[in-house]
Amino acid sequence: MQIQFLGTGAGMPSKFRNTSSLVVKLMEEIGECWLFDCGEATQHQIIKTSIKPRKITKIFITHLHGDHIYGLPGFLGSRSFLGGDEDLTIYGPTGLQQWVEASLKVTGTYLTYTIHFVELSEGLIFENDSFIVETLKLQHVVECYGFRVQQKALAGKLDIEKAHLLGVPNGPQLGQLKNGQDILLQDGTLIESTAVLSEPQQGFILSILGDTKYCANAITLSKNADVVIHEATFDKNTAQLAASYGHSTNREAAMVAKEAQAQLLLMNHISARFMLKDLALLQSDAQCIFPQSFIVQDLDAFDWKNQYVTRIASS
Amino acid sequence: MQIQFLGTGAGMPSKFRNTSSLVVKLMEEIGECWLFDCGEATQHQIIKTSIKPRKITKIFITHLHGDHIYGLPGFLGSRSFLGGDEDLTIYGPTGLQQWVEASLKVTGTYLTYTIHFVELSEGLIFENDSFIVETLKLQHVVECYGFRVQQKALAGKLDIEKAHLLGVPNGPQLGQLKNGQDILLQDGTLIESTAVLSEPQQGFILSILGDTKYCANAITLSKNADVVIHEATFDKNTAQLAASYGHSTNREAAMVAKEAQAQLLLMNHISARFMLKDLALLQSDAQCIFPQSFIVQDLDAFDWKNQYVTRIASS
Repeated sequence: MQIQFLGTGAGMPSKFRNTSSLVVKLMEEIGECWLFDCGEATQHQIIKTSIKPRKITKIFITHLHGDHIYGLPGFLGSRSFLGGDEDLTIYGPTGLQQWVEASLKVTGTYLTYTIHFVELSEGLIFENDSFIVETLKLQHVVECYGFRVQQKALAGKLDIEKAHLLGVPNGPQLGQLKNGQDILLQDGTLIESTAVLSEPQQGFILSILGDTKYCANAITLSKNADVVIHEATFDKNTAQLAASYGHSTNREAAMVAKEAQAQLLLMNHISARFMLKDLALLQSDAQCIFPQSFIVQDLDAFDWKNQYVTRIASS
Repeated sequence: MQIQFLGTGAGMPSKFRNTSSLVVKLMEEIGECWLFDCGEATQHQIIKTSIKPRKITKIFITHLHGDHIYGLPGFLGSRSFLGGDEDLTIYGPTGLQQWVEASLKVTGTYLTYTIHFVELSEGLIFENDSFIVETLKLQHVVECYGFRVQQKALAGKLDIEKAHLLGVPNGPQLGQLKNGQDILLQDGTLIESTAVLSEPQQGFILSILGDTKYCANAITLSKNADVVIHEATFDKNTAQLAASYGHSTNREAAMVAKEAQAQLLLMNHISARFMLKDLALLQSDAQCIFPQSFIVQDLDAFDWKNQYVTRIASS
């Protein structure tokens, strides 16, 4: 799993940060990418990466402000033009479907694939063999959701050589062991699956939070997360603005990560008021509360396996 | 009058060209800028220029394809956020108003200014003391308009010193002369206004054409134009595609400029299939038909007074 930030700014595009969007790359896990929010010019940012629009199979929209959705119609058309023919599911608040359909209709856009719309409400919104996605409402000036993406534990790997040494013949009993079942050999010997399986591998927990004030649901969604992605639109000097506009400061983001006992905090949705020179201070200030706090930039990529952030663009 | 190209690509954004938009700067003439088309990320391109969104008072939309309108809602919101409080008029085909209003509504965008929508039909769509704007339908796969922007002739300047030497006293008679009226002095001497006025200065004629096949209306709109802006999505090898998709080749654009007896042709809406190395050929091929043909790039700026194109970006 990798995360790549496509837009890390707040409200409007600036020279240095685009409006909100990030992609969770699950290519190794399930051969798909999931997009979270789609501000204007998200497709322009994708052009700068190795992401293939047709590989994006799910889009999650936190809320309906323009800086989170205005890139959607353009992206959908380009995904079609660039050979996307697999179904796409869009999860978003009430009203999104109607606007997307109106946008495609007025422009005469005919897609080569089907869109399934899922209207968001709190709770479980997706589950398959590998993943669970849950949502809770956050505290913004409009209805806004945060997402918790949890990868299910990966079964341990079967050590075939060891199984053979213990007398297990080739055949269905190997499959039973692989599925975690204990077996009896023909001579009555009990072979426990744990003897031939490596430890199950823990999956990751990722929380991706939309625009929000500091709130309890952000902590719930982030509980024990490997990565928390939380907005930090303001700082301690502008905390009053944060409260008025339904946003958070860098310190509030850090408090969420700390209280959730998370491993890593990546802060996005950074106001254009902060110049490049201010960012180090914003980050270190958050680190006083939660040491593993980082402010991300557009195109930054995080690799879960290797636990590092690659800074692709210098601005 | 200057023209700056904000997006010169076709259909989708590419690394080198954004989707359609250009601005006509009339700052010296009337202190305003007029925007023609507004593809996704037009506001991002504006950030790279000296254009102030609040100075844009009119937006003309040629047709409703996404690569010509998807930047509109974001631009409108940012114009408001950046202090725009003067009315804005949007001229576009039927359906545009409804979509723009739906976009602003779903995102909860409240503007600090009023938008006046004008639904396009053929003929005169705007006239004031300085300008006339007329439209005709072009030939595209959807309803599409071309615009002819004509600056009215500027009255000659009054040579006050010369008027005094001829015996004209200070007072209302000077104003009459300035307005082109002949006067009689108290002693019965006739003073003709042409004797004290410089020659009237010709205004410019500019044709800005949307997506179109080669068509007669493009020539009519471009008649004797100082500048023709015509799409050139395809070349001679892909002329069949041009015909099928309602677009033009570089040679067809040049034929329009030639038949209209225009002064200059600037070609935009260039397909991403053409690499940088192909562009010189596209241009020279058009120049065989109409020598003053040029392919423009994003952010290129044309200055009417000085008759030159400034290449701001190298890509």
